[in-house]
Amino acid sequence: MATIKDVAARAGVGLGTASRVLNGSTQTSPSSRERVLAAAAELGYVAHGPARALRRTRTDALGLLVSDIRNPFFSELAHAAEQEARAHGYAVLLANANEDERQADDVLRTFASQRIDGLMLSPQGPATPQLASLVERDVPIVLLNRRIEGVDLPFFGTDNEQGVGLVLDHLQRRGHRDVAYVGGTPTMSTGVERARAYLGGRAAHGISTDDALVEAGDFQTEGAAAAMLRILDRGVHPSAVFGANGATTVGVLRALRERLGADAAAAIEVVSFDDFDWFAYASPAITAVRNDASAIGRAAVQGVLALLRGEPAESVRVATTLVDRSGH
Amino acid sequence: MATIKDVAARAGVGLGTASRVLNGSTQTSPSSRERVLAAAAELGYVAHGPARALRRTRTDALGLLVSDIRNPFFSELAHAAEQEARAHGYAVLLANANEDERQADDVLRTFASQRIDGLMLSPQGPATPQLASLVERDVPIVLLNRRIEGVDLPFFGTDNEQGVGLVLDHLQRRGHRDVAYVGGTPTMSTGVERARAYLGGRAAHGISTDDALVEAGDFQTEGAAAAMLRILDRGVHPSAVFGANGATTVGVLRALRERLGADAAAAIEVVSFDDFDWFAYASPAITAVRNDASAIGRAAVQGVLALLRGEPAESVRVATTLVDRSGH
Repeated sequence: MATIKDVAARAGVGLGTASRVLNGSTQTSPSSRERVLAAAAELGYVAHGPARALRRTRTDALGLLVSDIRNPFFSELAHAAEQEARAHGYAVLLANANEDERQADDVLRTFASQRIDGLMLSPQGPATPQLASLVERDVPIVLLNRRIEGVDLPFFGTDNEQGVGLVLDHLQRRGHRDVAYVGGTPTMSTGVERARAYLGGRAAHGISTDDALVEAGDFQTEGAAAAMLRILDRGVHPSAVFGANGATTVGVLRALRERLGADAAAAIEVVSFDDFDWFAYASPAITAVRNDASAIGRAAVQGVLALLRGEPAESVRVATTLVDRSGH
Repeated sequence: MATIKDVAARAGVGLGTASRVLNGSTQTSPSSRERVLAAAAELGYVAHGPARALRRTRTDALGLLVSDIRNPFFSELAHAAEQEARAHGYAVLLANANEDERQADDVLRTFASQRIDGLMLSPQGPATPQLASLVERDVPIVLLNRRIEGVDLPFFGTDNEQGVGLVLDHLQRRGHRDVAYVGGTPTMSTGVERARAYLGGRAAHGISTDDALVEAGDFQTEGAAAAMLRILDRGVHPSAVFGANGATTVGVLRALRERLGADAAAAIEVVSFDDFDWFAYASPAITAVRNDASAIGRAAVQGVLALLRGEPAESVRVATTLVDRSGH
């Protein structure tokens, strides 16, 4: 089996250079990097992860556990995190909790056993035993977009209060009074923060405070559609609906069409927290709060890397923007 | 540090049961599983991945390298693969190639060093040195949705010829003669197979064989929009456009609106290979070939598990369905 000495000889570089390249250091020239990696591939050299992990307790891999990989917010975040990690010589191993605490805990067990260097985690709810165990073992961990009650970890997420404020201002400008709100999961910090900001801001923005217009969903399409139908069943007549995330908005659109027909549904303005590219092509186009998932992913990687260097990581709330498509 | 004996004692089960649970075997009762996992978490027990990998050369982790995690086809496939793997006691470590061969090779290096048990891979183009090295080392590998020239590995993907056949029949039923085709990357097997089936089937379906109506894109939105603009710049007047994947169709929509305005663009029927949920809400709604990404993901996991058992894995071409929204 080829050794690192064989690789260095074949690449025509020193042992130190070969070692730096193969350990993912960025302190090497691009040409050395190309030569060393080509030589390593030709010789079938494998940095022996398990043996190496025992020796130097570093794997150059960061774990990223997202809540739902099918949600474009998380796939965009994962993509940006991975680009940022690559720029610092780290690979990202991605896993999906599928909004399921037990699946999340199984993934954390796998990550622990693979000995990742650090973890970025979007929680499903309260702290689980496996997460508590990782925290106790001093694995560098940061939280993504959702907080956990009673767990004090650096946090990287959307500024929900600021984003909801943009929606309230927009609804007021457009003269809406009867606005339905389909919220997210009430046990998640994102659901709580968005609901609090919206419900508390209604009166000051000329929006009805009739709670018949309000229902909680579960941040997924089916649950949101059911919540929208419950609102319509009360005989209220909203002129606008605010969906608490992208999947919620899709459920709202589906329920409005199903219950009212396409034409009556199109007369209701739908506003979304989370922007999907296709909202520009919907009929009518959908105004949305754009979360900067990429900025959150990049900041989270920088936070984990700071913890790995033994430095503190500052929590970051990333501001949103409003994409106003109501003129179309 | 807690040992597996401590875990078994705390859970009140035998050592064999604790070992089976912690090694991800499904041959245990749900109640034993719950008790053992709770005990392991309480005691902070970590199956020592690196040491264990050296000893038994198994990690209970499968690698999944997708071409673009932001493409819903791949995120849906990843989700299904992970559910199937979990049902067999395996975790899935997901990584993203971002349609970039060099990034793909870096990920393969990380996977090799973490010693995954098997690999599911959606290739970016020809075989890379790192992939060749994994194949030589007899790591169980299956290919997802794209083939590699000269590499004989089990393949799990869409039946492109059958899917394009559904589109040709649809275009003929709708009476279209001047149909523009924005294709995919010509170096990828999916791009080649779809283009071959479409171009070869035009005449038999009453569709113009004027190649001024045809351009290759790159399976991404920007490249597809540019290709659509090149077609329009030739002064042709298509009554329909066929986009070779979902991102291509989004680029087509954007280019038609930009060049012709929303009303004239809405008069052109757009048909997509790949269905996105929101195509139902587009104006007009978009008819699409639905790829069964979930079935592909599940079949690929079953293929890798067969290879791990030392059995052959049969390649699978999964049939598509047409979602006809032209009546809306």
